[in-house]
Amino acid sequence: MVKRNARVAQVPRDAAPVRVVIENVQPQVDGGRFAIKRVVGESVIVTADVFADGHDQIRVVLCHRAGDAASWTEVEMAPLGNDAWTASFVVERETDWSYTVVAWVDAFRTWRHGFARKMTANKAETVDRLIGAALVDLAAERASDEDAERLRDWGRRLRGEDGQAEHWLDPASSALVDRYPDRSREQRLDRELRVHVDPVRGRFSSWYECFPRSTSPDPERHGTLRDCVERLPYVAGMGFDVLYLPPIHPIGRAHRKGPNNDPQGGPDDPGSPWAIGGPEGGHKAVHPDLGTLDDFRALVATAREHGIEIAMDYALQCSPDHPYVREHPEWFKHRPDKTIQYAENPPKKYEDIYPIEFDCAEWQALWQELKSILTFWCDQGVRVFRVDNPHTKPFAYWEWVIAEVQREYPGTIFLSEAFTRPRVMDRLAKLGFTQSYTYFTWRTTKREIEAYFTELTQTPVREFFRPNLWPNTPDILPEHLQHGGRPMFLARVTLAAMLGASYGMYGPAFELLEHRARHPGSEEYLDSEKYQVRTWDLAQPDSLAPYIARLNAIRRQHPALQGDHTLRFRAIDNDEIVAFTKVDADGSDVILVLVSLDPHHVQSGWVELDLEELGLPVDAPFQAHDLLTGAHFFWHGRRNFVQLDPASVPAHVLHLRRKTRTEHDFDYFL
Amino acid sequence: MVKRNARVAQVPRDAAPVRVVIENVQPQVDGGRFAIKRVVGESVIVTADVFADGHDQIRVVLCHRAGDAASWTEVEMAPLGNDAWTASFVVERETDWSYTVVAWVDAFRTWRHGFARKMTANKAETVDRLIGAALVDLAAERASDEDAERLRDWGRRLRGEDGQAEHWLDPASSALVDRYPDRSREQRLDRELRVHVDPVRGRFSSWYECFPRSTSPDPERHGTLRDCVERLPYVAGMGFDVLYLPPIHPIGRAHRKGPNNDPQGGPDDPGSPWAIGGPEGGHKAVHPDLGTLDDFRALVATAREHGIEIAMDYALQCSPDHPYVREHPEWFKHRPDKTIQYAENPPKKYEDIYPIEFDCAEWQALWQELKSILTFWCDQGVRVFRVDNPHTKPFAYWEWVIAEVQREYPGTIFLSEAFTRPRVMDRLAKLGFTQSYTYFTWRTTKREIEAYFTELTQTPVREFFRPNLWPNTPDILPEHLQHGGRPMFLARVTLAAMLGASYGMYGPAFELLEHRARHPGSEEYLDSEKYQVRTWDLAQPDSLAPYIARLNAIRRQHPALQGDHTLRFRAIDNDEIVAFTKVDADGSDVILVLVSLDPHHVQSGWVELDLEELGLPVDAPFQAHDLLTGAHFFWHGRRNFVQLDPASVPAHVLHLRRKTRTEHDFDYFL
Repeated sequence: MVKRNARVAQVPRDAAPVRVVIENVQPQVDGGRFAIKRVVGESVIVTADVFADGHDQIRVVLCHRAGDAASWTEVEMAPLGNDAWTASFVVERETDWSYTVVAWVDAFRTWRHGFARKMTANKAETVDRLIGAALVDLAAERASDEDAERLRDWGRRLRGEDGQAEHWLDPASSALVDRYPDRSREQRLDRELRVHVDPVRGRFSSWYECFPRSTSPDPERHGTLRDCVERLPYVAGMGFDVLYLPPIHPIGRAHRKGPNNDPQGGPDDPGSPWAIGGPEGGHKAVHPDLGTLDDFRALVATAREHGIEIAMDYALQCSPDHPYVREHPEWFKHRPDKTIQYAENPPKKYEDIYPIEFDCAEWQALWQELKSILTFWCDQGVRVFRVDNPHTKPFAYWEWVIAEVQREYPGTIFLSEAFTRPRVMDRLAKLGFTQSYTYFTWRTTKREIEAYFTELTQTPVREFFRPNLWPNTPDILPEHLQHGGRPMFLARVTLAAMLGASYGMYGPAFELLEHRARHPGSEEYLDSEKYQVRTWDLAQPDSLAPYIARLNAIRRQHPALQGDHTLRFRAIDNDEIVAFTKVDADGSDVILVLVSLDPHHVQSGWVELDLEELGLPVDAPFQAHDLLTGAHFFWHGRRNFVQLDPASVPAHVLHLRRKTRTEHDFDYFL
Repeated sequence: MVKRNARVAQVPRDAAPVRVVIENVQPQVDGGRFAIKRVVGESVIVTADVFADGHDQIRVVLCHRAGDAASWTEVEMAPLGNDAWTASFVVERETDWSYTVVAWVDAFRTWRHGFARKMTANKAETVDRLIGAALVDLAAERASDEDAERLRDWGRRLRGEDGQAEHWLDPASSALVDRYPDRSREQRLDRELRVHVDPVRGRFSSWYECFPRSTSPDPERHGTLRDCVERLPYVAGMGFDVLYLPPIHPIGRAHRKGPNNDPQGGPDDPGSPWAIGGPEGGHKAVHPDLGTLDDFRALVATAREHGIEIAMDYALQCSPDHPYVREHPEWFKHRPDKTIQYAENPPKKYEDIYPIEFDCAEWQALWQELKSILTFWCDQGVRVFRVDNPHTKPFAYWEWVIAEVQREYPGTIFLSEAFTRPRVMDRLAKLGFTQSYTYFTWRTTKREIEAYFTELTQTPVREFFRPNLWPNTPDILPEHLQHGGRPMFLARVTLAAMLGASYGMYGPAFELLEHRARHPGSEEYLDSEKYQVRTWDLAQPDSLAPYIARLNAIRRQHPALQGDHTLRFRAIDNDEIVAFTKVDADGSDVILVLVSLDPHHVQSGWVELDLEELGLPVDAPFQAHDLLTGAHFFWHGRRNFVQLDPASVPAHVLHLRRKTRTEHDFDYFL
């Protein structure tokens, strides 16, 4: 570490422009316009191209500091060759961090480098030592009193004729000079880059979505938040750590939809939870049939005892019965006939929904109110929000409101539900969303899966976009789940849970294998819970709950699966099998996942591994332990055979272990 | 074209932040820190990712202007899909250009889009027309008087119940509204991007380097600038348009080197022209043995009559005898023993050269003087400079001095001779060098050539780095020329002239096949002209001059070869043959080049072409006319056979021509 000295030499003249160039500092998002994302405890590995004209030696330091730190901590960057330099730091606390790069031409290092060469070639002259001594004297002027004395002493030895090579090149003295560099002509990157630091759950999370009104054990009774409390052991038993509830607010009456989105719904139908607001209140109220605010707080508290955070749905739209419509008509768009503009996608009309007019004249009051919805629920203990359709609201709103809420309630997580075009999804992630829904739901072939997740995890996108993978949602029952049967459900949930450090599912529809679409070619569920209360038989014998519990247990036990950046697809000579590895930060936990995309036939192939890269022995057997079934395979070499049967489990999750003991031990593998 | 209207609506309130995002504007260099490069008459094709939240329609315009223009010209950008937009402009004059992007959410377009859909679905209501009419009225307020009347008229028709669909959707009226958009909430890219515009020679040039002192027809006499004048027809006959002279200044006496870099050179030796400065003068003087300043001006003028520009060498270093050393000792580095620091690369010493201390206290006076060297020669008519080792002088100096000289002498060309690390070469190009020497000299295998020139021509590097390819220089006789014989000389000059819109050679060493190195393993010429006067027999029967003349004639006749951005390597099933195409800006001139890298054996193979991409017929024969030999080949289909014989010419330069006439015509091919 370089300690910046307070007594930097003052330059008494108009010096020529500084000579060092700092370029291409990575990671950064849009030239530093946005922060990169990390979770607490992670490293930020910084690289930069740094160079000066000519052949002088330069020194490069990485400066970093927590948002609340008064001064920079500096780490000397090491050359990687070809003018690239690197260093890293750890974001130790859950606060935003800054970093930048500083470099300077170092006259002392330049001298020492040349002098050592001359000494080796027996061509050093007296004048060479005098040049060095002058530089050492200058360092002494910048040094602390004690060090200054030692430096002046070395300077005297360099001036003396009776010195010996080992004195003139003394490494300890050189290192001492290095502590007091002349940085009066340093180059400083023209900006500070930022790291947004989230809690670990921002990167590694397992989401379960369910409708509270369908949690009643009594088919005749509307589910409540108290029923949700009873459901917690079931959710925790499957290993989820976020329970996401669709909107729990009062539901509008006007144009209320009936079952299967019937436009002729009646007052006895429960309506869509996303038609928010009724006479009982709006976004800060609890639907009376679900319970009270006290019930909600109890749910949040009990969930936390199970290691589960409750995620609220933040859906910024109003039913015609929402109190805002009456109290703040200025927040909506009015048509020339004095009616309020309902949502539409011409020629389709959604008359049960009024969009909010973010751009209205009174936008500041509006934005404050909309923010207060979030802080209201934060005050009830919520720290996770799933944001409905953020891409239909202004980007500036999200940048502002997320920063505001995270400032007041640090560590709050926002999941962007923007199933839209790539540039828009990316922008929302850059603006501050902690996690984002992805196209995973529709990526079904090996080629699509490899291309998409390589893009998400191996390109600069990964610095700001944290994928959250969902095999289904209440809006999306993809075609392959309609027709692929149990093997397809197993394959998709395995892919989601293993490809993504964060993933989620809409249950109990998922674990109970619900696959009936409203009509052929539709992705909508038949008898969707969006429009009616459903009763689920959790004890159904073919439930996937035990399998899902196994997946989540594996995720918790293996740090390799708790991040996305190490994902690497592996070659296998079968296009129906997806193969990939993940390792943890220090490379000691190595997981190989193989998933068959074919729900009908047994598929097999030879998977190829780069053993050296994975830290596995090239010339000795190693163990592949299937964490799903407990089976142990003894593998050797870079090509190994696998076979996956849809009739049992169409996947392997293999923990690859180097043999570390001899045959004299009982347990051969670590 | 969108005409920006002066009467933009004033926003009387504090509007919400603008909704449009402009990202990823290309081309640009380092976020706009540096200009992209073009030559006069070229297009700049701009792309940008532009989008807003929600589903509203946006409009995007590209703004551009010449440096001296008072206002922006605007071109509407067209959508490419996936939120990308494009438009282009031509840099019509030799002045720097600026461009930027502006976009806005367009309420009228949004309304019209939805209204048309509703009309189609028969779901349009009266209120929809009223909304549109209000927008049309607002446009009328922004319009000229005449247009305003037409717009108000359309507004009335939209309000009337008796209108017809064709009136309500009238395209001409819509187009009129488009001319008066509401841009009060427009987004403007936060920077102006710059284009540096050079004369055509900046992109397309053919350089010939020779030592004036070796141009005497009499072996006993030192060559002069008048001999250079006599040499011009020979150089012009080969088709070159830049004649580059190594330094023509007085040469230092101290530590003067003898033949073959002998450190024991004497006063009778001519010395190295790069040891600049003697009692007769420095960088602004002509070596007395070469002639006078008048002779030089005559050479420049006569050269120009031959279509040739004289390029001066700008080598910023001094011999110990340079007048600067005596008159401005403050511009050099002094050692503790009062001596001046000579050049060194420890432990090697170059005592005949004093580097200039750019960083000295009197740097401003120094930089002005160094700039005045350039303007002095500009005043003698020079407009092309080859800059010696720019990477050992401060980057800031080059950025300043090139801009200054080009401001005073527009169109001046600077060639960077920085054989150094990639990042440093790139930086110099970004800072303003018009062209740059490359690693071509050492790229000898097909794989190396393809990788390097793909990087130079198909990545963002091409926006600022214009390669100039040299098969040899006075410093570099590469190993393959030492041992590859005539076929290798032919292959290398063909590659240089065809791969690079700009290329050069050091002659007459090159065309006379000089291949003797000073010693095995060295890249230095034996009896190098750097240290002695040489006599060359230009009439030597095996001279490559006719072949080079043919290459340069082909380059002049074919616009495809006058740029680098269209270079594409083509597959051929022989690793000894390099195959590539170039086309001109409108794709009508298609050249396929094939060069064998094997100087010993006949090589053949099947070359593959994407016929549709090249505009060639898929289902009919086409002609491949070898511009080197005049041979005509009739080809068809995407795979065609070629064979190259080192005993004749190891290359084809094929003009590919679509058959445009019938058998009734004499000349079958256009």
